[in-house]
Amino acid sequence: MLSKAQIKYIQSLQHKKYRQKFSQFIAEGDKIVQELLRFRLDSVVAVYATGIWLEQHKPLLPGDNAQLELVTVEEGILKQISSLSTPNHAIALVKMFPAPGKIELKGKVTIALENLQDPGNMGTIIRIADWFGVSQVICSKDTVDPYNAKSIQATMGSFARIPVYETDLQSLFEAQKDVPVYAATLHGKDITTFPPIKEGVILIGNESRGLSEAIVKASSHEITIPRIGHAESLNAAIATGIICGRLLL
Amino acid sequence: MLSKAQIKYIQSLQHKKYRQKFSQFIAEGDKIVQELLRFRLDSVVAVYATGIWLEQHKPLLPGDNAQLELVTVEEGILKQISSLSTPNHAIALVKMFPAPGKIELKGKVTIALENLQDPGNMGTIIRIADWFGVSQVICSKDTVDPYNAKSIQATMGSFARIPVYETDLQSLFEAQKDVPVYAATLHGKDITTFPPIKEGVILIGNESRGLSEAIVKASSHEITIPRIGHAESLNAAIATGIICGRLLL
Repeated sequence: MLSKAQIKYIQSLQHKKYRQKFSQFIAEGDKIVQELLRFRLDSVVAVYATGIWLEQHKPLLPGDNAQLELVTVEEGILKQISSLSTPNHAIALVKMFPAPGKIELKGKVTIALENLQDPGNMGTIIRIADWFGVSQVICSKDTVDPYNAKSIQATMGSFARIPVYETDLQSLFEAQKDVPVYAATLHGKDITTFPPIKEGVILIGNESRGLSEAIVKASSHEITIPRIGHAESLNAAIATGIICGRLLL
Repeated sequence: MLSKAQIKYIQSLQHKKYRQKFSQFIAEGDKIVQELLRFRLDSVVAVYATGIWLEQHKPLLPGDNAQLELVTVEEGILKQISSLSTPNHAIALVKMFPAPGKIELKGKVTIALENLQDPGNMGTIIRIADWFGVSQVICSKDTVDPYNAKSIQATMGSFARIPVYETDLQSLFEAQKDVPVYAATLHGKDITTFPPIKEGVILIGNESRGLSEAIVKASSHEITIPRIGHAESLNAAIATGIICGRLLL
């Protein structure tokens, strides 16, 4: 059973303000809850699910002496605490993954996002990062909140495996100048001329305005996906996928 | 002014049944209406837009003796005839592009979609096709309707340039066996081992089930994007982008 106060608390986490205040967020959906139990058990505070779901996923659930709270709830209550139009059978209350004291770029492949606005794109890019074995996703401070329910949903579980941090990108790049930064723009060097990389930052900008001039200046390379046809641009997540498909394979 | 009957007719085109019955569809949004006026003027039956929009886009609009009907409508009416949650300032009524007697694969790059279900993915793939200079998009009969408002919106105008047809894919491939078909699966040959192509079909399957066994059998190659990390799969539109980025560049 969930008390009214608990329901209210969970609902409050639909807002970034409260997620930041309490350093907790809600992850919805069968797949993502399973992945969190597998890969981030220490971060899961509680699972709210139907009795059937809890029964079916027993092997994944920790023993009685674990910190994790398991709560059987009815579908009506799940609907109330869900922020999605199609509510799921399981919802997890999760502690935000702690940010490292210093974000390390050396020896890693990183995807960096400047001012990305669409939560679906955010989630899809985290999923791409997980497919290509990217170490981390770093967001500028004006990027859409990756802890947004729609974003988490779009990761299809990859959220549990890929660390996502928020920082000032320009300071980050300037402090670690020996790591190459590949800025995706419409006027850079053809991506097919670059050899595959094992270290570096793939930098993607806002859906309609692209990257800011300042951040392009702080980068070491401007890269471009050659256009053969007539579309004015590509979706930001699609561009990320294509660039990973060229630079990481 | 729009009569009640006209409003009712336009609203009816939100349903596939009526789009097929009348061979007309609705395209919403500033960008797509502009692109239709530029690239498919002959197909545009009417434009319903605010007075300001029509004034601002005068250079694109044809002279008085054109077949095209230009109708000034108030925002309230646009809201009524729009099928999107955020209505636009211009909506076009468009004749469906006529399907060719025979779909030709020879000498062309084609994207074929089997049982794709998400209209956003459909639109995004049409936009990718337009970026990479793909000649046409061919859909199996159980694929989501490309004339769906959400799909057209996601093409960002590319809908006006890329012909999209519906047909039985298996018969199509079997009738033109000399054109290679590259089926995207999770167990095919590494895409990085293929040289760029100038002719062929890139075949993409359903978002959760992938391609059917029958259609894979009717293909000449099974191709796979190598996975370095742990995500179980990639979004269908992302996979299409990555494959185009490897096979067409």
